[in-house]
Amino acid sequence: MTDILPAGRIKQIAVIGDSEAGEDAHRLAEEIGSSLALGGYAVITGGGGGIMEAASKGAAEAGGLTIGILPGTSKYQANCYCKLVIPTGMGHARNALTALAGDAIVAISGGAGTLSEICFGWIYQKPIFVFKEYGGWSKKLAGKSVDHRLDSVIIECISVEDLMIRLRETFED
Amino acid sequence: MTDILPAGRIKQIAVIGDSEAGEDAHRLAEEIGSSLALGGYAVITGGGGGIMEAASKGAAEAGGLTIGILPGTSKYQANCYCKLVIPTGMGHARNALTALAGDAIVAISGGAGTLSEICFGWIYQKPIFVFKEYGGWSKKLAGKSVDHRLDSVIIECISVEDLMIRLRETFED
Amino acid sequence: MTDILPAGRIKQIAVIGDSEAGEDAHRLAEEIGSSLALGGYAVITGGGGGIMEAASKGAAEAGGLTIGILPGTSKYQANCYCKLVIPTGMGHARNALTALAGDAIVAISGGAGTLSEICFGWIYQKPIFVFKEYGGWSKKLAGKSVDHRLDSVIIECISVEDLMIRLRETFED
Amino acid sequence: MTDILPAGRIKQIAVIGDSEAGEDAHRLAEEIGSSLALGGYAVITGGGGGIMEAASKGAAEAGGLTIGILPGTSKYQANCYCKLVIPTGMGHARNALTALAGDAIVAISGGAGTLSEICFGWIYQKPIFVFKEYGGWSKKLAGKSVDHRLDSVIIECISVEDLMIRLRETFED
Repeated sequence: MTDILPAGRIKQIAVIGDSEAGEDAHRLAEEIGSSLALGGYAVITGGGGGIMEAASKGAAEAGGLTIGILPGTSKYQANCYCKLVIPTGMGHARNALTALAGDAIVAISGGAGTLSEICFGWIYQKPIFVFKEYGGWSKKLAGKSVDHRLDSVIIECISVEDLMIRLRETFED
Repeated sequence: MTDILPAGRIKQIAVIGDSEAGEDAHRLAEEIGSSLALGGYAVITGGGGGIMEAASKGAAEAGGLTIGILPGTSKYQANCYCKLVIPTGMGHARNALTALAGDAIVAISGGAGTLSEICFGWIYQKPIFVFKEYGGWSKKLAGKSVDHRLDSVIIECISVEDLMIRLRETFED
Repeated sequence: MTDILPAGRIKQIAVIGDSEAGEDAHRLAEEIGSSLALGGYAVITGGGGGIMEAASKGAAEAGGLTIGILPGTSKYQANCYCKLVIPTGMGHARNALTALAGDAIVAISGGAGTLSEICFGWIYQKPIFVFKEYGGWSKKLAGKSVDHRLDSVIIECISVEDLMIRLRETFED
Repeated sequence: MTDILPAGRIKQIAVIGDSEAGEDAHRLAEEIGSSLALGGYAVITGGGGGIMEAASKGAAEAGGLTIGILPGTSKYQANCYCKLVIPTGMGHARNALTALAGDAIVAISGGAGTLSEICFGWIYQKPIFVFKEYGGWSKKLAGKSVDHRLDSVIIECISVEDLMIRLRETFED
C-alpha cells in the first residue's frame, strides 16, 4: 500500500462474519467496531444482522462512520447502526463489493457468504485479518493461503489490540 | 417516503451528470454539493470527473460526506474529493447502484450514462430533480415522465435554493 | 465489426421491449424472433413476459436458440420459451448484461427498463435497431443519437425484412 | 429439484476450475465437457482458459452447446470454444453468475475464484460435484460441507462416468 490516497480519504475496514453468531462473537465484533471507529476508520459491513450488526453498533456508538452494502434494494433492510447505506439489489453477488470496499478485511466466524468475501478479498489483494475463537472459515483459514497467487496468508489476530496494531502497520507501509 | 429511517441514518443524495461538462455546469454542481453538505446530506456520485467531481468538491469543502461509487476496482480511480469510496468492478452496470444509493437524485446535463441512472432512479421510484440550463437528458426530461409506471414526473429545479426546499419537502412527507 | 469471431460462435441478437405490450406488438416481436432464428441468430431477452416472451416464442418455435437473462435467481421465473437461462440475481442491473450480450439490439416499444438497455447498448457501441409503430422509447429515439459520444444513430426499421437485411449488412462489414 | 422446467429447457452444467491447470487436469475437463455434451447438457464456464477452455473444447467438439460468462465486456475475450458468450463487465463478481447459471456445478482443482463459485453454488443450493485428483479446493472440500445451512455435502466423483450417473440421478428426482 505505497500509493497515497488523497488527504481527506477515510480508511475503510470491512468487517465480515455470520449473520447469526453467538453472544460472545457479537461482543468481539462490537469491540472491534468500537476500536475501528476510535482509530478513525469507517466500518463497512454487508448491513445485515449478527457480526455485521454488532460491528456497526460498536462503531456507531463510538461515533464512527458505518456503511452497509446491502444485498437488496431497500434501505430499510439495513441494521439500524448503518449511518450510510448502499443497497445493491445484487443479492449475494454484493459480497464482491463488500470485500472490494475494504482497505482491509476483518473476519469473525463465517460460512459460505463470508468465505466468498474472503475469496474476493484475496483476489483483490486486500489484507485479511481473522479471529479464530468463534470457528467457521475464519478459524480454518487463519495463517493459511487461499491459493498460490499471493505469497501472503490470512493473518490471525489474537486480540482487538493486536488487530489495531496490525492495521496501523499495514497502512503505514 | 413515510417510512422512518433510524435516527442515525444520513440522507444520501446522488448527484449525476456528464463526466465532462462546461465550467458553468461544474460551478452549479459545486454549489449543489456545498448546499447539500450544509443541509446535512451525504453526496453520492459515480466518483469520476466533471459533474461528479464538482459536486464532490463542493460537498467536501463544505465539510460534508462524499461517497464515490466507482465502475472499476481501484480506489485510486476516484476523484480526490470522495471521502468514502465504493469500488464495484462492475463497469457501467454500477449506474444502477448510484441511482439506488440516492434517497433522491439530482441531475445536471447528462448523456447515456446519466440517462441510464435516471431510468434506474425512475424504476426504483426515487424523486429525481433536474437542472435544465446545461442541456442533455436533464433538459429533455424536465417535467416529463420516463414511462407510465409512475404518476410522477422528473422535477425541474430553477435554483439551488429551489432544490433544497424541494428536498426538505420530499423528506418531511 | 471487422474483428473476426471464432467459426463456431453464434451471433446473438438482444430483443428488448415492454414486459406488457399490446397484441400487435407481440405479433411483431414473435415474427422478429422467428426471422432471427431462421437467420441463424440466437435470441437474447430479459427472459420475462411481453416483448421478451413473444420474441422467445417466435425464435423457439422456429427451432432457434433462446436465452433469457433474468433479474432474479430462479430459472423458474423465465418464460417457457427460453431454452437457456442465465439467472443473475442482480435485479434491474441485469439490463446492462442484456445489452452487452447482444451483438446487436432490437427494440420494440419500451419504458424505463428498455431505455436503460438502449443506454447500455449505446455506451457499449452496439448497433441498435428500433421499430416505431408501438411507441415508447423505440419511437422517441428512432433516427436519433443518445449522446455525442458516437456519430451513429438509433436505426429505424420499417419491416422485419428490413431488419434482417440491416443485420446482415452489419455483420458483413 | 422436483420443480418441472419447460420441455424445451436445456439443462446447464457449470464447469469450474483453474484458469491454468496441468495437462492431465485439462484432459479430464475436456472429457467431462464431451460427456456432458453427449448427455444433452449445455456447458457453462467462465469463458476463460485452463479448465474453462478444456471443458468448452470437449463439449463443442462433441457438438454440444457451450456458454462463456465473461468477467469483461468484450466477446473477444472468450476462449474460441464458446458458442454463446455472455460478457458481464462485472469482473470477478461474475463468479456469482457462473454458479447461478448451473443446474449443477462440476469443479476440478481450483483457487480463490473457483472457491467463490463453490460458495455461491452452495448458497444457491446447487448440487456440487468435485474431482479430487488435481488438488485445489475441489480436493479440500470433497465430501465436506461449506457451512451448516445445508445438510448436503460437496460430492466427490471418482470418474466421468460416475459424474454422469450422479447428474442423471440429480435431475430425475
